[in-house]
Amino acid sequence: MHPNGKVYLVGSGPGDPELLTIKALRLIKGADVIVYDQLPGPEILSSLPKSAELIDVGKYAGDHTLSQDEINQLLVDYASQGKMVVRLKGGDPYLFGRGGEEALELRKAGIEFEVVPGITSAIAVPAYAGIPITHRDSASMVTIITGHEQKKDGSMLDWEWLSQSLGTLVILMGVSTLGTYIPELIRYGRDPDTPVAIIERGTRDDQVVTTGSLSTIIDIAKDRGVKAPAIVVIGDVVRLHEALGLSG
Amino acid sequence: MHPNGKVYLVGSGPGDPELLTIKALRLIKGADVIVYDQLPGPEILSSLPKSAELIDVGKYAGDHTLSQDEINQLLVDYASQGKMVVRLKGGDPYLFGRGGEEALELRKAGIEFEVVPGITSAIAVPAYAGIPITHRDSASMVTIITGHEQKKDGSMLDWEWLSQSLGTLVILMGVSTLGTYIPELIRYGRDPDTPVAIIERGTRDDQVVTTGSLSTIIDIAKDRGVKAPAIVVIGDVVRLHEALGLSG
Repeated sequence: MHPNGKVYLVGSGPGDPELLTIKALRLIKGADVIVYDQLPGPEILSSLPKSAELIDVGKYAGDHTLSQDEINQLLVDYASQGKMVVRLKGGDPYLFGRGGEEALELRKAGIEFEVVPGITSAIAVPAYAGIPITHRDSASMVTIITGHEQKKDGSMLDWEWLSQSLGTLVILMGVSTLGTYIPELIRYGRDPDTPVAIIERGTRDDQVVTTGSLSTIIDIAKDRGVKAPAIVVIGDVVRLHEALGLSG
Repeated sequence: MHPNGKVYLVGSGPGDPELLTIKALRLIKGADVIVYDQLPGPEILSSLPKSAELIDVGKYAGDHTLSQDEINQLLVDYASQGKMVVRLKGGDPYLFGRGGEEALELRKAGIEFEVVPGITSAIAVPAYAGIPITHRDSASMVTIITGHEQKKDGSMLDWEWLSQSLGTLVILMGVSTLGTYIPELIRYGRDPDTPVAIIERGTRDDQVVTTGSLSTIIDIAKDRGVKAPAIVVIGDVVRLHEALGLSG
């Protein structure tokens, strides 16, 4: 019923084309159809092969943005025609990439699929800013969350629990809600002097790192006009930025 | 003083040579010296170029294993001779890879260095087992820890805090201490029915996935002779393994 059609859920990493995996590049070159949005970034998107049918699900048929259900259906439809489909995603498909949702729909439709992990921004962006998210002396664990995420009942993440972490917190898409969760972390007892870094345009040449502490970062971010998208890192590892950052 | 010598701290990913990044492969091919241990795995290690000086720090000069201090010194020494050195590490250098420690020593010695992120086993190994570590309906955050890690005062990780997580727990090197922390998680109130997966030889052809719950996994692991090295995943996302795993 689906002769040889297959969907590859491929992570493209944080944006640097050289951080694509060898497997991702091979699949991109061999794809009949590449389904993407803007998250892989301009450099990777501009190098996609013209031999493939390129579908921007953020600007489908002009400027209509496809819903997740519509994207799922698109993947099923093309694979059902026997096509080799690459679903290209920024970062890693299974870390806040909604790859699991697409995979479930493909399985339900009886479509063969395969996940190809990508370099996640949650680790690579701090690394390029000179921040190892774990470090022997200051962090033996890390919790990764998204600033936008809400629980099913509509409430926010459990900041009380997060405030008690002995490890590093990495918050993807963490800028727009900074004014909400930073005061929560302090209110629940996290040391106000805990270092914080905000990394804009991470891994790119025009990357900007803004540092402060829980008690100062909101004002500093406002002064400097820090904007989304950005990644926020909270914890003692931020202190390594001065020694290990490019400008350090 | 160090004419053009440079050290690249390169992540090699979970073991599949195709999960190397394009940048990692380019640097490996151009290296004067490659300093490695066994963690990148046999496939990647057997394909290292003979043009480079290959140094196994696990079997230095016969069978002497170098200490971290000795490894640091080796990197400094070669770079000081003007060599282009690749320090190859399994997974990602800055997630439990001790890359931060090596980077600090290089900075201290005035040696130029650069970190090249790799695909981390913490995400890729569950992915290959059909487990997205985050998933819309069941986990909007993930905490990554190592089973071997101890706090500075010699006590173990804070399992009471970890037992209260609403998200996924990923435990690297989590098999040998399974009998210690699983009872702790239950004792502190984590639901004994919480699903658990243990993934041996992750991403390899002979990968084995063993599943159970907090209350059953210790016995199941014993029955099946589960052995280190392996990665343990705890949380509702484990339920997706049946639908999304290769054998599902």
